[in-house]
Amino acid sequence: MTTTDATHDPGLTSWVASANGHAEFPIQNLPLGVFSVSGGSPRAGVAIGDDILDLTEALRLGLLAGEAARAVEATADGTLNGLMGLGAGPRRALRAQLSHLLAEGTQPRPHLLHRSSDVTLHLPARIGDYTDFYVGIHHATNVGKIFRPDNPLLPNYKYVPIGYHGRASSVRLSGTPVTRPNGQRKRAEDPTPSYGPCRNLDYELEMGIWIGPGNDLGTPIRIGDAPNHVAGYCLLNDWSARDVQGWEYQPLGPFLAKNFLTTVSPWVVTPEALAPFRIAQAPRAEGDPAPLPYLSDGADQATGAFDLELEITILTPKMREAGLPPHRLSLSNMRHMYWTAAQIVTHHACNGCDLHPGDLLGTGTLSAPDPTGLGSLLETSRGGKEPVRLPSGEERRFLEDGDEVALHARGRREGFATIGFGPCLGTVRPAPGI
Amino acid sequence: MTTTDATHDPGLTSWVASANGHAEFPIQNLPLGVFSVSGGSPRAGVAIGDDILDLTEALRLGLLAGEAARAVEATADGTLNGLMGLGAGPRRALRAQLSHLLAEGTQPRPHLLHRSSDVTLHLPARIGDYTDFYVGIHHATNVGKIFRPDNPLLPNYKYVPIGYHGRASSVRLSGTPVTRPNGQRKRAEDPTPSYGPCRNLDYELEMGIWIGPGNDLGTPIRIGDAPNHVAGYCLLNDWSARDVQGWEYQPLGPFLAKNFLTTVSPWVVTPEALAPFRIAQAPRAEGDPAPLPYLSDGADQATGAFDLELEITILTPKMREAGLPPHRLSLSNMRHMYWTAAQIVTHHACNGCDLHPGDLLGTGTLSAPDPTGLGSLLETSRGGKEPVRLPSGEERRFLEDGDEVALHARGRREGFATIGFGPCLGTVRPAPGI
Repeated sequence: MTTTDATHDPGLTSWVASANGHAEFPIQNLPLGVFSVSGGSPRAGVAIGDDILDLTEALRLGLLAGEAARAVEATADGTLNGLMGLGAGPRRALRAQLSHLLAEGTQPRPHLLHRSSDVTLHLPARIGDYTDFYVGIHHATNVGKIFRPDNPLLPNYKYVPIGYHGRASSVRLSGTPVTRPNGQRKRAEDPTPSYGPCRNLDYELEMGIWIGPGNDLGTPIRIGDAPNHVAGYCLLNDWSARDVQGWEYQPLGPFLAKNFLTTVSPWVVTPEALAPFRIAQAPRAEGDPAPLPYLSDGADQATGAFDLELEITILTPKMREAGLPPHRLSLSNMRHMYWTAAQIVTHHACNGCDLHPGDLLGTGTLSAPDPTGLGSLLETSRGGKEPVRLPSGEERRFLEDGDEVALHARGRREGFATIGFGPCLGTVRPAPGI
Repeated sequence: MTTTDATHDPGLTSWVASANGHAEFPIQNLPLGVFSVSGGSPRAGVAIGDDILDLTEALRLGLLAGEAARAVEATADGTLNGLMGLGAGPRRALRAQLSHLLAEGTQPRPHLLHRSSDVTLHLPARIGDYTDFYVGIHHATNVGKIFRPDNPLLPNYKYVPIGYHGRASSVRLSGTPVTRPNGQRKRAEDPTPSYGPCRNLDYELEMGIWIGPGNDLGTPIRIGDAPNHVAGYCLLNDWSARDVQGWEYQPLGPFLAKNFLTTVSPWVVTPEALAPFRIAQAPRAEGDPAPLPYLSDGADQATGAFDLELEITILTPKMREAGLPPHRLSLSNMRHMYWTAAQIVTHHACNGCDLHPGDLLGTGTLSAPDPTGLGSLLETSRGGKEPVRLPSGEERRFLEDGDEVALHARGRREGFATIGFGPCLGTVRPAPGI
């Protein structure tokens, strides 16, 4: 899975001029998504520089053949579910043919392109189920410390890839406004809870995993097969109402604190595009238990982690007025997952639970071990006790109305083109009246 | 909502002879479902006695008009999602016209009928999201006692209708085998967890709520409008792997302990059919807080609860061999919900979370306050400590392979026809090899 091929050649350039040296979508990336033009039907596309290549049109013109054609035929319903369900073969064939079709030296076909700024992007798949995990060990430790300073990680953490079900209906694309939720909240000094706008609105920096073929009910996915069930990756912001969460979450876990909105970045960045950024899973700390056999796979442990920079920025209304740029709140990395995507997938299906193409898994918040790379304000402001100072002179304990939060992910490696995911952003709007 | 009309008249009989005096599906019930005949496409139907009336055929023959016709037109995709989305008006019109069409004295139309024993039943709707609540206060108290004998209910219980997201993909119809899940489990005496077949497999007696029109993201559902968003009810068995649950559930709630299978009964019993069984919500115990204003509605509290008998039976392989009938493990009642369906719906959407037609909500386990009406073996056997004795001489702490568990619900009231839901059953199969 770490193998790179000609499609990763950093010298490869495209006849789409904006792609060459593009910070996110050079010809080495070729992420898949769904777009529509001036109210037309959603259709599959590939981001290339500042443009989107129309896959349906390329198919219609006979520019894709065999497995690659089959991959695009599977998108006829305007989603990538069908393509995801076909697995790695057709997806790889499509990448190879697109890499050729878009390469400098091939006949330019600008009629296949739409300017990204002219189109509407859509969720890449109908999400049947959305599950959120908790595999960012530094986040789990930081949050645990708030409640249990001496024993932050629970005894199951290093055995179980902890996860819980989220709400599929409220997953939305980057750019969707974040309406501050109303809910029950109770401060320590309040004798009883009250119902009103969330006071402690937060973000959570996560990666999303799009599921490929999946499994039948009752049929587990072996760890060695698990990589074949990952169709790609995105950024994911698990917006969180911390005051609601603190009051509601016992004994069955977070619910309304999370399900008012989950934002994802629009492009499905494929395992193939990420091949240059694969790294070995971090060695377990001394004294950590080995994963149980059903979660152990040497090949996965050797290449199952990713070195991807993850960044969080904030832009407040006051900063915007002052002409200030977005301010970096955090720089983390995807390498801080305690469990790999394959381990997450295998664990999810080990009891026979059926996963389906287009299902979405969140990794959980991916904080770095140091204070410059924390994935939530809960951690950065230590539960609201130490406000963050912004370049505008403002402070933030939690998010205020008008704040825009953006997540970015970048793969950078010497000898390879840099690739990105496109932004995952949202701006907070006031809560509706009660 | 408690109003009964001519469709509830206990003297009303049908030209479908098996319906008259039928224990579950007399003409006063008319529950909606989806069926197919010998491999044909799934289509909407109504249970009447031992038969199913084909709604599409009735529409084609011009036997339904206006709103009722619109209701059936909305089922053209072979699910009830569209019909559920239309709300109460078309559903009530359909009930009224079906009541007339099937009444004794109207022209018999046996060509509209299929024998129930000849058809395949399907899930009535595509379930977008499934949420499980915890509103059975006696169950919450019983389970809480196992962990916190002096303080069984957490401080939020009487303010928050506690719920969490379940897995939509693994909801199946009654009759689906229950494959014993593998998973991580750790007994108190085990130094570390191991992976293998669940040792403490359990059932949970719940009712399911099918969502009607629903709401847009960011737009709450007011408590006074909430009844309009309930399309109907079913039985629901939230199969539970207790040993997996005990090890995995901190801090984010149950996950693999529940998502290997959830079984529902096939028929959507409408709010109209249940009108005779509506009762006032049980008065809150002295000292209990009043519901917060967003969950308070006099009309709902006056008629938002249901008097429906809920029964659990077991049939083991040994009992089957001995020719013994299923043995009643429990007799409970739907009246033991601390929160009404309207309160559950309003709470779920109060933060702007969007509900959609065909979404499924579980009530949580509905135990009675006395030991003859407990909704799970966890409660009946006190965590496995006091085995249940069966007429075959066997004992059960938890379920064994081959055991069949069935749930039943019945509405009985003097002066009204008795109605039922059809069974919600499943038989345990051995875990797959590891």
